[in-house]
Amino acid sequence: MAAGNVPKKARSVKEASSVLYNCSSRQKNALLKAIVFRLRDQIPEILQANKKDLKSAAAAKLSDVLTDRLTLNEQRIAQMMEGVKDVIKLSDAVGTVVEKIKRPNGLCIEKMRVPLGAVGIIYESRPNVTIDAAALCLKSGNAVLLRGGSEAIHTNKKLVAVIKTALNEVDLPAGCVEFIDTTDRAAVLEMLKQEKYLDVVIPRGSQQLISFIQANSSVPVIAHGEGNCHIYVDNSADIAMAEEIVFNAKVQRPSVCNAAEKLLVHSSIAAQFLPRVARRLSRAGVEIRGDKETLAFVENAIPAAQTDWSKEYLDLIIAIKVVKNLDAAIMHINRYGSHHSDAIVTQNTSHGERFLREVDSAAVYVNASTRFTDGFEFGLGAEIGISTQKLHARGPMGLVDLTSIKYVVHGKGQIRK
Amino acid sequence: MAAGNVPKKARSVKEASSVLYNCSSRQKNALLKAIVFRLRDQIPEILQANKKDLKSAAAAKLSDVLTDRLTLNEQRIAQMMEGVKDVIKLSDAVGTVVEKIKRPNGLCIEKMRVPLGAVGIIYESRPNVTIDAAALCLKSGNAVLLRGGSEAIHTNKKLVAVIKTALNEVDLPAGCVEFIDTTDRAAVLEMLKQEKYLDVVIPRGSQQLISFIQANSSVPVIAHGEGNCHIYVDNSADIAMAEEIVFNAKVQRPSVCNAAEKLLVHSSIAAQFLPRVARRLSRAGVEIRGDKETLAFVENAIPAAQTDWSKEYLDLIIAIKVVKNLDAAIMHINRYGSHHSDAIVTQNTSHGERFLREVDSAAVYVNASTRFTDGFEFGLGAEIGISTQKLHARGPMGLVDLTSIKYVVHGKGQIRK
Repeated sequence: MAAGNVPKKARSVKEASSVLYNCSSRQKNALLKAIVFRLRDQIPEILQANKKDLKSAAAAKLSDVLTDRLTLNEQRIAQMMEGVKDVIKLSDAVGTVVEKIKRPNGLCIEKMRVPLGAVGIIYESRPNVTIDAAALCLKSGNAVLLRGGSEAIHTNKKLVAVIKTALNEVDLPAGCVEFIDTTDRAAVLEMLKQEKYLDVVIPRGSQQLISFIQANSSVPVIAHGEGNCHIYVDNSADIAMAEEIVFNAKVQRPSVCNAAEKLLVHSSIAAQFLPRVARRLSRAGVEIRGDKETLAFVENAIPAAQTDWSKEYLDLIIAIKVVKNLDAAIMHINRYGSHHSDAIVTQNTSHGERFLREVDSAAVYVNASTRFTDGFEFGLGAEIGISTQKLHARGPMGLVDLTSIKYVVHGKGQIRK
Repeated sequence: MAAGNVPKKARSVKEASSVLYNCSSRQKNALLKAIVFRLRDQIPEILQANKKDLKSAAAAKLSDVLTDRLTLNEQRIAQMMEGVKDVIKLSDAVGTVVEKIKRPNGLCIEKMRVPLGAVGIIYESRPNVTIDAAALCLKSGNAVLLRGGSEAIHTNKKLVAVIKTALNEVDLPAGCVEFIDTTDRAAVLEMLKQEKYLDVVIPRGSQQLISFIQANSSVPVIAHGEGNCHIYVDNSADIAMAEEIVFNAKVQRPSVCNAAEKLLVHSSIAAQFLPRVARRLSRAGVEIRGDKETLAFVENAIPAAQTDWSKEYLDLIIAIKVVKNLDAAIMHINRYGSHHSDAIVTQNTSHGERFLREVDSAAVYVNASTRFTDGFEFGLGAEIGISTQKLHARGPMGLVDLTSIKYVVHGKGQIRK
């Protein structure tokens, strides 16, 4: 089958979406429970499929980090099951009336939440995304076409087979979850042309993947791009607090998109703050790149290149720049940042408010670590990812962001004059 | 200048957007007032520019309908001014806190409305869109790059010059409103590649234009596509009400997207209803195309082709089909419709509720004309258009749909564990 039979699968997802569209929360929860049971039943088979992927990974000399991401064990499958159980507990926004408008002519107009319909998800790396994303889409009444990374193909195929067993058990169409079971790159391009069947495509991955998808998709895209996050330490900052926040945002988990990649420091406290924070970061193994002024205060720093300012490292590297004031910090962040998450550390309320207002990012912080940009930390209960665009959803995307609206109008024979 | 100097203008819009982003409602209203004054001042010059377009239209033998759309006079300019005054009165959603979340760790998270940023609008025909769209974008804090139809190029250029005079008067950057002053089609393609500068592109026009833009844009698109709207007359309908609704939806203004194009009639009332409604429609000059069963009841009907079911006529034409029940009607609408506006006429509450729930359209009606799908009729105060997609905005798009959100987080030194 050419390119994984994409149009046929997209159509099957579209058809199934009209069944899911009208499912009650009870029916959708019954499905999710069945998925948990089938996952438990099939642990040995899932691990066996995963072994095939691990064998190919070893042959292809995949890095330890990527191999670790790919690896499943009983504990990780148990975590997937817990994730699905958490989604069961969440309330389902479908059918909620967001707004009710009573018109002078007597028309009663309700703006009601409905599923998006047919969702495409393109992701890389970890096989747990297969279960997480499917559970969130199903709970919000959406059918889903999945396209995972080629390294995890056998594991993903097996996980989707498990979901299909559960769908069959609760009498829902198999097309509610389809998987593109080819590693052929052309399949992604074909998926992006299915505007007849798919209502949205959500890509999760590198900026390169996202840009490729944005440039080639006829289907509307919700981009989950990279995070070049900044901490700006203001002249009025509490120095001890600033050190803790910078250290946390850089070191606690450097491989994620809400980790800090850049530190901007007000020139009047650079002499006091920079040597102190640099020592702490260096002890944790962080490589420091600095502008000319930073180099004067941090002896083991290496010069930052111009390209550093727009880079996402996802690693123990930080680039530091001394700025002359708040305006320069805001301008730098809006210019070189990725509009993901940025923070100011300051005791000056009006500086804090200006930063929050003027920095054009999905999440802006005063006196807290950027690491909090996350669906669970924001209290959304779960997340399908973190949107870095302004349309439809921005920042952590929860269940409610997997819905659209429709206007439901009750009349008594009204006609337009 | 190649293709109207698009990248330079897009960049100018982006830069201006950061100034508008932080404008108060008072400043934005002052700008809109200045636009009203400058329009009043410049009526002779605007009419003069319009004459040039009308002269080209006559030379190109443009149809009467299109020439009428293109024509300005003092009254139509006065209507534009009234439109801007109406936008001044609307409340500006920017800065509104949609949701406030207090986390157990003490973080205070506010979900706040912010402008989208830099908006591209691609439209055809009527020059009043230039003023309407600019006013709505400016009021919601967005800078805008406009691309109007080639027939109105001189009028549009003049109208944008008027806006720029107003911008200058209130000390806002000229880049808040830019216009692509070339009729070169390549300029549209170039506009769609400005993802670095534009946050969204809103095309208004034919389905052909929309599809071209969706297939070629790297910038996120909010599509305003066509309306293939249905009225389904149920077996339990009030026949007199059904006749009024069908007549209104088809005849009152056939050239707009919320006019009815299709009539579905339950087989058990076809004999009673069809001859009656057909007579009324025919007297108003409506051409009737019908399926085989309809032809038996309507003597002057011509046979409908298979392609009729998915067509938007925007004219005094209707296609009629007899269906065996509610299920067949819903299935037909979801399959052949454009997911814009669809109505059922019924006295049976459960039939009405099923139709409202299961028809997957932006606006669904029970016992009312589809002609109400409109920002003013829905009480939004104004509309930038009617979205036919599910992402971000669906149905009539008001001021609030020209905003995005940002998460504003206040902490006291919180770090992630």
